[in-house]
This record gives sequence, structure tokens and C-alpha cells, in this order.
Amino acid sequence: MPRKLRYGMVGGGRDAFIGAVHRKAMALDGHYELVAGALSSNPEKAILSGQDLGLDQSRTYATWQNMLEGELKLPLEQRIDVVSIVTPNHVHFSVAKAFAEAGFHVVCDKPLVHTSSQAEELIATVQKSGVVFAVTYNYTGYPMIKHAREMVRSGQLGKIRKIIVEYNQGWLATKLEESGQKQADWRTDPARSGAAGCIGDIGSHAENLVATVTGLELESICADLTTFVEGRQLDDDGNLLMRFAGGAKGVMVASQIQIGGENDVRLRVFGTQGGIEWHQENPNYIVYNPLDAPRQILTRGSAYLCAAAQKASRLPAGHPEAFLEAFANVYVGAAEAIHAKLEGRALAALEGDFPTLEDGARGVKFIERTVQSAASSQKWTAF
Amino acid sequence: MPRKLRYGMVGGGRDAFIGAVHRKAMALDGHYELVAGALSSNPEKAILSGQDLGLDQSRTYATWQNMLEGELKLPLEQRIDVVSIVTPNHVHFSVAKAFAEAGFHVVCDKPLVHTSSQAEELIATVQKSGVVFAVTYNYTGYPMIKHAREMVRSGQLGKIRKIIVEYNQGWLATKLEESGQKQADWRTDPARSGAAGCIGDIGSHAENLVATVTGLELESICADLTTFVEGRQLDDDGNLLMRFAGGAKGVMVASQIQIGGENDVRLRVFGTQGGIEWHQENPNYIVYNPLDAPRQILTRGSAYLCAAAQKASRLPAGHPEAFLEAFANVYVGAAEAIHAKLEGRALAALEGDFPTLEDGARGVKFIERTVQSAASSQKWTAF
Amino acid sequence: MPRKLRYGMVGGGRDAFIGAVHRKAMALDGHYELVAGALSSNPEKAILSGQDLGLDQSRTYATWQNMLEGELKLPLEQRIDVVSIVTPNHVHFSVAKAFAEAGFHVVCDKPLVHTSSQAEELIATVQKSGVVFAVTYNYTGYPMIKHAREMVRSGQLGKIRKIIVEYNQGWLATKLEESGQKQADWRTDPARSGAAGCIGDIGSHAENLVATVTGLELESICADLTTFVEGRQLDDDGNLLMRFAGGAKGVMVASQIQIGGENDVRLRVFGTQGGIEWHQENPNYIVYNPLDAPRQILTRGSAYLCAAAQKASRLPAGHPEAFLEAFANVYVGAAEAIHAKLEGRALAALEGDFPTLEDGARGVKFIERTVQSAASSQKWTAF
Amino acid sequence: MPRKLRYGMVGGGRDAFIGAVHRKAMALDGHYELVAGALSSNPEKAILSGQDLGLDQSRTYATWQNMLEGELKLPLEQRIDVVSIVTPNHVHFSVAKAFAEAGFHVVCDKPLVHTSSQAEELIATVQKSGVVFAVTYNYTGYPMIKHAREMVRSGQLGKIRKIIVEYNQGWLATKLEESGQKQADWRTDPARSGAAGCIGDIGSHAENLVATVTGLELESICADLTTFVEGRQLDDDGNLLMRFAGGAKGVMVASQIQIGGENDVRLRVFGTQGGIEWHQENPNYIVYNPLDAPRQILTRGSAYLCAAAQKASRLPAGHPEAFLEAFANVYVGAAEAIHAKLEGRALAALEGDFPTLEDGARGVKFIERTVQSAASSQKWTAF
Repeated sequence: MPRKLRYGMVGGGRDAFIGAVHRKAMALDGHYELVAGALSSNPEKAILSGQDLGLDQSRTYATWQNMLEGELKLPLEQRIDVVSIVTPNHVHFSVAKAFAEAGFHVVCDKPLVHTSSQAEELIATVQKSGVVFAVTYNYTGYPMIKHAREMVRSGQLGKIRKIIVEYNQGWLATKLEESGQKQADWRTDPARSGAAGCIGDIGSHAENLVATVTGLELESICADLTTFVEGRQLDDDGNLLMRFAGGAKGVMVASQIQIGGENDVRLRVFGTQGGIEWHQENPNYIVYNPLDAPRQILTRGSAYLCAAAQKASRLPAGHPEAFLEAFANVYVGAAEAIHAKLEGRALAALEGDFPTLEDGARGVKFIERTVQSAASSQKWTAF
Repeated sequence: MPRKLRYGMVGGGRDAFIGAVHRKAMALDGHYELVAGALSSNPEKAILSGQDLGLDQSRTYATWQNMLEGELKLPLEQRIDVVSIVTPNHVHFSVAKAFAEAGFHVVCDKPLVHTSSQAEELIATVQKSGVVFAVTYNYTGYPMIKHAREMVRSGQLGKIRKIIVEYNQGWLATKLEESGQKQADWRTDPARSGAAGCIGDIGSHAENLVATVTGLELESICADLTTFVEGRQLDDDGNLLMRFAGGAKGVMVASQIQIGGENDVRLRVFGTQGGIEWHQENPNYIVYNPLDAPRQILTRGSAYLCAAAQKASRLPAGHPEAFLEAFANVYVGAAEAIHAKLEGRALAALEGDFPTLEDGARGVKFIERTVQSAASSQKWTAF
Repeated sequence: MPRKLRYGMVGGGRDAFIGAVHRKAMALDGHYELVAGALSSNPEKAILSGQDLGLDQSRTYATWQNMLEGELKLPLEQRIDVVSIVTPNHVHFSVAKAFAEAGFHVVCDKPLVHTSSQAEELIATVQKSGVVFAVTYNYTGYPMIKHAREMVRSGQLGKIRKIIVEYNQGWLATKLEESGQKQADWRTDPARSGAAGCIGDIGSHAENLVATVTGLELESICADLTTFVEGRQLDDDGNLLMRFAGGAKGVMVASQIQIGGENDVRLRVFGTQGGIEWHQENPNYIVYNPLDAPRQILTRGSAYLCAAAQKASRLPAGHPEAFLEAFANVYVGAAEAIHAKLEGRALAALEGDFPTLEDGARGVKFIERTVQSAASSQKWTAF
Repeated sequence: MPRKLRYGMVGGGRDAFIGAVHRKAMALDGHYELVAGALSSNPEKAILSGQDLGLDQSRTYATWQNMLEGELKLPLEQRIDVVSIVTPNHVHFSVAKAFAEAGFHVVCDKPLVHTSSQAEELIATVQKSGVVFAVTYNYTGYPMIKHAREMVRSGQLGKIRKIIVEYNQGWLATKLEESGQKQADWRTDPARSGAAGCIGDIGSHAENLVATVTGLELESICADLTTFVEGRQLDDDGNLLMRFAGGAKGVMVASQIQIGGENDVRLRVFGTQGGIEWHQENPNYIVYNPLDAPRQILTRGSAYLCAAAQKASRLPAGHPEAFLEAFANVYVGAAEAIHAKLEGRALAALEGDFPTLEDGARGVKFIERTVQSAASSQKWTAF
């Protein structure tokens, strides 16, 4: 087993939600150790959060700028290898750019940045510096999603005709942002969340699922975005018709006002030879309907799954794996890529299976085009 | 128990599918007896089919015109009370109009007719003759759909925001019409099926479910219709965005190429106070998600259901009821209305709960507007 | 189609539950018509119930003895062909014996009679008179149970090792019999229900499912019966270990106090080559687990099912069938056997598939042995 | 956050299964760091396994005896705090006793030891040394099991009447031990596994679930154990009737030959006021059936759950948690207890919620009594 990668975290301090998820995901397989942090945009809270986590005082930074500066002063063998960016969206761009420019590997939460021009700038930066850059589209980390991807890409479903993707939530059915709930607060604020609410926060996950599993390119979309809760500044519900290059059609439902939806992500893909269905709320199964043969239930941990699904799995069939393991799989792939860089070698087969900067950039474009389509009276907006 | 109603059937002979379903549904509760029939458009087959069913030879007609003429010659106490029209769609109009004009009550399969002008003509005819006219949108006959309607109409879900309706089939994923399969043959033929394939055959059921449960009026729609199977003449897949008067939004998925879909009808309705979900493939349950309280599973046959749902139910909870009982409920409602007419009295409470001619007409309009929207480059087509 | 069989019903009048189920099941396929009845043990109620059903006054009998006498006086071509006995259990024996002796075919509800000696007497009677005798163990009428039987009998599951059968109810979790609820009243009364409560009422269904599907003979049982509700006279919960000839083992759970159980009948069968699972609350599916291959979901109406399952099915896959159709299948099989008798011919292939008098007798023995085992301090009671 | 606890592991090296699960569970929340190991009974493999895990060479021990000796030589602030014992069963006793005597805290896999006298000896040892001792009955670590426990203990279900517990597996349906599969090999070997196979390996989990959730004491049991696979030395299937003090009844099904069972643990508990059902294969839900009210689905992460369930949860509702988090919860509770010991303070509310040595001892007794009952011709064996 190679050495643990040293990481610093930006964001993820007291009151944050997703930072702790990233830390648990990174801890799970022993590939990473936390050695530095700028854990809040509030310098005082940043320091206290570092204490909470038992961080060395000298590497508990008040700001990410301090962290960048401080780490660069350290000898290479102490310096962080990688930065994990888990702030609200509006902070992603400057942090990611600065660290990537300075030669640090980057894992960044999604949606990547606010605009496609930012995304392009980031791509240029990363191309120049040659760092590894992963985006935590965590749902594609599920072993059964990797198997779904294999079923589609290998042609087992035939030519793909139709895709239905959903992300059903209900937590914003009331004006929760007025209650002081921190997650609701920033996610409904255009300044921090970006041009879209629901479609940016969860529609972008849906887009990534479809792109990852099918590899199909969106040709045009037709979106209807709604803000159901009065006074809210961003959309809390979005529905899309989609057309893909090659003729496949799609439907996306993303909502934060569908009461009863917890984190109900669902994907259905239909081809000429069969169809599949997957639900994240019970993610260890794929329902597979071959043409003219009985329905099958494929279960994680089974010997008949593809190599990528087997590699992404930690437990025997029937012992359920879930969200954290899927999240951890993104970090496993990033760790493999970083180690390969450190060792100056190419990735081995099955290594480095994680959502890339290009996935992140396409996700930003998806949000932009969706907002544009929703505002248009034309049916189809080219992607 | 009032006397059995005498019915004649048009269509439903040898090789037909839906005619036998109608007959079983009519037989179930003892409200009807079959006494006459013009059971096929092929006169020879019509006669043989009458023999199959043990029909009196004198009332086994070679054509529906013969049946109309023959029955009118009979004394009132022998003559059929009601005609059940179970032919392919293109025959509905003339038969329904002729029998309604002659004073016979009518139960007609869906979609009602090919054009809105035919529908209007039929409405005028029925208004003049005063007969009972039911359309067998059978899914709204399910007890749990009646309860869903009550939950929405009584305000239990608050103001309705979002509706997702699906009818997922896969049986036309290949060019089945070339195999000589009779159902595939006429349903993919514009001359018999009408201007739409999938959206007419099953999308119209989805429309009726939404309208029945919510009572909301469509304001505009945005449709994408596709013919995936090469050489097919009508759409085999349709996806719609919907806007309702009052601000609710909707999504409809109807498909005949989603392999694995058998007759997978699903309805989800979300309001400000809760959401519900129903599946026809396991129709005895509603998943009910109240705002800020645990999810509930409502079960058919339970004492907490509304009166209409209880009346529509024949068995205790846990003993499943299904498609035929729901179908029969349409006929029960029609029988109540016919008996009320025969007795010259108004309907009692809960009596006469069935899809009407107006439902049928709106369904025809839905098909027209969907086809129109699919052909349009404008996003929204007014309904 | 052969002529409708004329039937008379004993029991099933006002306030009865199961009589109406039988009538609907008999009506469904048009094989039977009701022409006579002794519909209640209360003569007055018997007459009123006949009026409710529109029975001819001359054939609405005050007692079953009157019906027997009256019908025998009628010419053969008017006389009932078959009697349907739907009374509480204690009445089955005398009615069945008398009608069978007089040459009428019999369909009798379960459990057949109170004692094995009654059952043997009945078998002797029927052997002498040669009438058709069916017992309405309705759950074995489900198409998917017929397919399960085929999977086991054809060896698809290999040698059978283990059977788990459950009938979970909760309706008697409180002392419902004190409320005047008629079903609870007689079913908890030893004089009418017999020596067992739960195990007689629903355990006997479970026994029939196992015997029908597997064909295995019980070798010995070990039963634990409990009366949880204070003051109740019969068991309301029963759990059994079972041993079958040939080495298979089994577990039975039958309960009327498991709150939330509606009519939750479940069957699991495991062999050396695979296992299957079926639930009556969603009866159109079998979960099939082949050894070392993905789980399959078999769906009613599919072309890959066995001939008996296909014959027992009325609707395409996905349009659910349920309890009434399964019940009707018992009557279809009986009608086929009666017509064969009437025509003096042998049954054709797939005809006459219904639970027999021998099934009924074995069910009575099962109840006796279970009660005996429950009272024994020995672990195993020979069957 | 208190300092990480230093742990040494016995067992869990190359080819082992459960050791890696323990390590991931310990890593998840950052409470533990691995600093020493005697990772295999094969000294050579033990050393290689230490290298795999990046253990310091000086603390990669060839045997557990070496580890005990070596660690005791280290100053307290370097020495391991706790030993994690993840060997096959037969090794548990000597290791646990030796380390507990030496003052190390212990986390031991289940079943605890081979005999009740060993268990008692261990209890005496631990009482003397005062160390924390946890047994990894991991299923009781699930948040929804903690909530089930609260529902029962708080009286929400009324007086408990009936318990059905299942652990359904199929992986030993063939003679897998002959294939060289390591897990199958030792688990079917009496010398290493103990007096029972299936009932020891997974029946003991089922026992712990029941005891933890209900707190009821077994009064007597009636067991049927079977070895279905020819030539196997231990049972591979076990079914039990159970009687609890106070009158509750129970049924246990544990099997390794039910093909299709992956790790299908299910628990149902019924009281006078309601019933609940839980499945480990989809562990984020409890089906709750209150008396005379609609069924509810309780979901992990919800605000209405009890404090212990909320504390045991890491993610919002809908983002599934699973096996590893439940496993980690055992270690979280142990860490809390160890820290309390280290700090010389009592446990705070909700701290130290893990299966104890007494749970382990009762589990051993359960296995003994079950084997005894299976061999007895008496129905009930006192517990």
C-alpha cells in the first residue's frame, strides 16, 4: 500500500454538512490523512474548526490564501499533496485555480464553478500545471452505476433510445431558508449558489449520471424551471426534455419541492435490446429487463458484474454499501491518479475512475443552457 | 337488486383482446347480461363469435347496423338497454352516434373518437337524446385512485404544485406489427388508431388519470413525440411538459419502447402539504408523504379511506383487487346511471362515478394538442 | 362455449362475507348461473337474501334441506348441477354429504369438515356417487402458484430442501369477536370453527399451498399454538416446524395478531438448484433465484410461463390480476370437470386443475395433527 | 475531539475477510489508528500483511503473544489502547483473556468463544481488570435498530407478543468448503467454528438482534438443525421456536442454503399496539404498523427518530447508510467507553452504546442450547 496522501481542506468546518462527508469518505480506505485546513470563510470559525478536528495548530489556517502560502513554504515531504474544496459554490473557482496553479492536486465539490468561462480558465490552468483534478459527482461512484455504464457502453442494451433521470427531493417545499438552516440559506442564494437552484444543486448530478452511464452527448434541451415557494430567489423545481446526438431522447425531473423525496435519485436507460433501472435510495441493485426474457435483479458484490463494479465494492452481496462508499470511490480514483503522477507512471487498468474537470465543465454548461432554455420561447435550445 | 341490464356488444369477437375484458368486467357484479352482438367487422367472424359466446342466433348480427335495426324492432322489454363499443378507435364514432341517437345508452372504449369535431357532434347528440354515455378510462376505476382524488380535492395535499404521470410499456420495442399480432397491427395504423400511436393509446389514459385525480385544467403543453422503430407510422414514445391553470406543473412520460415496462402506470401528485404516489402494477396501495411527518402506506380496503374508495372495493385489505375490478367499477357506475334514468330519478350520493363523454372529448383534444405541439417549434402550445 | 352450469348456494346471504366472493368468482367467466339458494341458517334471512339476489321465489329456500328436496323434484334440465357451500365450517359436512349422495356436484369452502372421520365418510360418499367435489383453497388458483408448482415438479429447483410458508394477519389482535363483527364471532367459536382458530382458518391455506406447490408429504410436525387475546377460545397464532418425507424441512408462521398483516400470504421454496418466493399481496410476480445466476422476477402473463399458468391468466403482463381471478380459477377447473362428467368424457390436458376432496381431507388432518402436536411435550408428532 | 485511540489487530491479514471491514469501520470516524498487528496465525503471512498495511516494522508481530509482550514493553503513551480480535472463533478466547488481563481494552468478533465456561472465565477476567470489552454484533449498530429498540422499550408497541427473526443466506448451498474458499473452510470446521455452523455464525446475530431490540429473556427453545450438504460437518440450516419470559413467542430462521439469500437479515416484532419490520438489505427503513392506523415507513435521518438513532446516523435521510456505518457504530460506542475510562469519568447520556461481553456470553449460551435442543426429543429445552 502506498503512503497516505496529505490533504488540506477548504471549507467543511463547524455547521457545514458536506465537509464531514468528504473527510469520512477519505478516511474509509486509508488513502488520505488530513494535515491542514482553512475550514471556514469566517477566520475565527476556521481556527476553532481546526481544533475540533485535532489539526496541528500551525496548519490550521484562517483563510485559504494563508493555507496556500503556508503550505508552499513547507518542504515537499510535509506539504499537502492535494486540496479538497468543499465550500459553497461561489468559492470553488478562485481556490481551485490558485491551488492548481501552484501545483497542488485538487478535488472539488460540484457544481464546479459559476460560468463556463471560469470552467475553461480552470481547464487551461490544469492543462498547464498537469495536476490531477477530480469533481465529486459522488453518485457515479456507486458500483452499480459503474456496471450500468458497462452495460450501456458494451452494447448489452443495444442502441440507446431513451433516458429518464430523476432527482426527487422535498426538503425545500417550505421556505426553509428563512429558518436559518445553513444549507437552505446558501443553496437558495444566487450569489453563492449560482444562476440556478434546484437544477444546479441536484439537476447537475442527474446530468452527470446520464453522461457517465451513457456517454451520449446532449444536442438540445427544453427546460421548464419553476420557483414554487414564494419569495425564493432561485428555481426549486426543474423538468427537461432532452435530445441526444444519435437520436436518443430523455426526460429529467429534478425537484426540491416534491414532499417525501429524500434523496431519491433514479436512472432508467432503455436501448433496443433491454432496459435498466437504478435507485440511489436502495443502490445495491439494478433492475435489468432484457428484450424478451425475464426481468433480472443484479446485486452488488456478485461475480457476474464487470471489473470496475467489482473493484468499487468493499463488501459481499447482501451486506449493503451506500452513499459513503460511493463517495469514497471518487477519492480512491483520485488517489490512484495522484500516486501515478507522483510515481511518474501511467494509470493501470481500472485505475483513476472518477469524474474529471471536463465533467465539471460540462455540468456548468448544462446549468447555463438549462437556465437559458427555461427563459426561451423556443422549444429547443442547442446544447 | 335491480334487474340485469341487457347489453349488446360491438366488436370483441374472435382474436379481439379488450372485448373479453369488458365482458368479464360486466359479469363480475351481476349488473349486465349479454343478449346481442355485432362482434366483428368481418360479418362471418361476427356470426361465429356469437356462437362462441352462446348468443341467441337471432341476435347475433353480422354488422352493427343490423344490430341497431334488429334491436329497434324488438319490444322495449327485450331490447338491449345499452351498447358496449369495443372496436378499434376508428369505428367508435359512427356506432356511438347511431346508437345514442336511437336512444340506447352507450359505453365506449377510449380514445373516444378521432377528432374534436366528432367529439362535439357526439356531445350534441347525447345532449339531445339524454342517454347515459360512459368512456372506459379504466384506471380511474381503481379504489385507490378514487381515494387519491379525494385527497387532492379535499385539500389534504394543500395547493397542488406538481404532477408526474407515466405509462411505461415496452411491447412495441420491436416491429411487432409485422408479425401479424392483431393489437400491434391496428394500434400502429393511423387509419384505425388515429393521429397518434403511443400518446393516443396510453398517453390518453395518463391524461385522464391526472384530470380525474386533480381536476386541474391544462393550460399549455410542450410535447416531444418519437417513432423509434423504423418504418412505424405513428409515435411509439412521448414525453410532455405540462402547465396547468393555477400554476401547477407536470411531466408525462408515455412509451411503448421502454423494454421491461409491462403496463406500468404511475402517478405522483405533490402539493404544499404532502405528496402521493400510486402504481397500477401494485394498485392496492398509495404512498402518502405528509409534510413533516412519516411516510404512510394507505391500503385498499381500510376503514380510513374515503367513501368512494370503500364503495369501489369488493374485498378486505390484503386480498388484492386489480385491473378487472377497476374496469368493472366503470360499468357499475354506468349501470347506476342507467337505472336512475330508467327509474326517472336522480343519482344518489356516490352513484354514477365513471368517466364521461366530456372526459372522452377532452382526451381527444389532448391527443390533438400533443400532436400539434410535437410538430411546433414553439415551446408551449395552448391547450 | 358449453352451457352455463346451474348452481345453488348454501350460505352467503345478508352479512356474510365469502358468499359474495364465490358468486363474483363464478360470474367472472360466464360458466355458472345462480338459480337456487338456501342463503342463511336463519330461514327468514335466507328468504330475504334470495330476494336481494333476484332469485326466483320458488327456488329461494328457507333451509338447505328444503333446497335439496325442492331441487330433486325439478326435471333434470332445470335442476341445479352443482351446490356451492359457503357456510361456517360446522355446516359443511352434512350439506356436502347430503348433496353429494343425491348426485349433485359440490364446491365447498375450507376447511372441509371438523374431523378426519367426517372427511373419510365424505370421500366414501363421493366415491360412490361419482360427483365432482372441489374445495376452495383459493390461493392455489393463482397463475404464479401454478408456475411455482411447475418449477418444483419439473425439477427446475433441484431437490427441495426447505419451505417457509406464512400467513400473516393482524385483524384479531384485539377481541374483535366482542364487537359483534360476524366473521370474528364464528371464526373464534370452537362449535362453528372447529378445534383450531388461526391454524384452521389460515394455517390450512398455508398447508395447501405447500402441498400443492411441492407435492411433498409431511412426515412430522412440531407446533406451538398460542391464544394471545385473553378470553379467546381458540388459538390466534401458530408456528410450526415441519419435516417432509425425503428430508426437506419447513417452517410455518400463521397469525391473526401480527398487527399490519392484512392477508399477507408468502411462500418460499428452496431446492439444490434455486429458490423461489411469492407474496399474495402482490401476486403477479415470482422472485426466482437460480443457483449462481442473477435473480429473476417472473411476471404473470409472460410467454415463458408454463401452460397451466398461462391458461389460468386472463390479462396481459402488467395489468394485475388478483384474488378474485385466482378464486375463479378454482371454479373454472370445477366447471371443466363437471362438463366432462356431463358429457361422459375424460378431462383434456390442463382441464380440472382445482383442489380436490383429498386436499380437503389432508387439510383436516393437518389441523388435527397441529392441535395434537401443540398439546404434546414430544418434539415431533408424526403426520 | 479526543485523541485517536491506538489499536492493534489480531487476525485480518491477507485472504481474511472481516479484518478489512473492521479497519474501515474504525477509520470512518477518525477515532482509531492502527499501530500494531499480529495479522495472521501464519507468522510469515502476519509479517507480509503488516507490510501491506504500512505498519511500522517493529510493531508488525509474528504472533499475538509477541504483540502482547512487545506492546507491554512500550511506554504507555505509545502502547496500543485496544486490541481488535478478528480471527476465526477458536482463537478469540485465549487472545481476549490475555489482553484483557494485561489491561488492554478489547473489541472481539462474534461468536465470542466456544463454551459458556470460557465466557464466564472471560467475564471474571474483565471484571477484575476493568477494561472495556465490546463484541461486534454489528447489526445492532444500525440506527433503525436503535430506533426499533426505543419503540419496543418505550412501550410504543404495547406488550410484545411475537418476534420473527431471519438470517437468510444461500452461499453454502453447495460444498463451497471443498473449493478452497477460506471463509467456507473455517466456518464449516467444528475445530475452528465451534459446535454449530449456521446457527453459530448467523443465528447468533439473529439472537442478538432480538435480545437487543426487545430485552426479552428466552425461557425455552425448540430447535431443528439440519446439514443439507452431504459431508458437511456442521449444520447449514436452523429453525427455532422460541418462548420468552412474559409470554412472548418467537420464530427464528437461519440458513446458509436458501439460494438467493445474500445477507438477508430481517426482524419483525409485534406487540399489542403495533408491529414493526426491518430488513438489513435495505436498512434505512422501518415499516411500522400501528394498531388501527395507516402503515408508516420510518426513514433514517428523520427528525422524529429517537436520540440514539439520530446520534448513530451520519447522513441526511435518503442518502443511504449501510453495513459499514453500522459496524462503525459499535466502534464509536467502544471508543466513547474507552475515553471515559481513560479520563476516569462516567459515560454521558447516549455514550457507550455497543454490544457487551454479556451479550457475547448470552450468544454462546444460545448456541449451546440450540445444539442441545436440536439433539433432544423433548419439545422445549429450557434456556
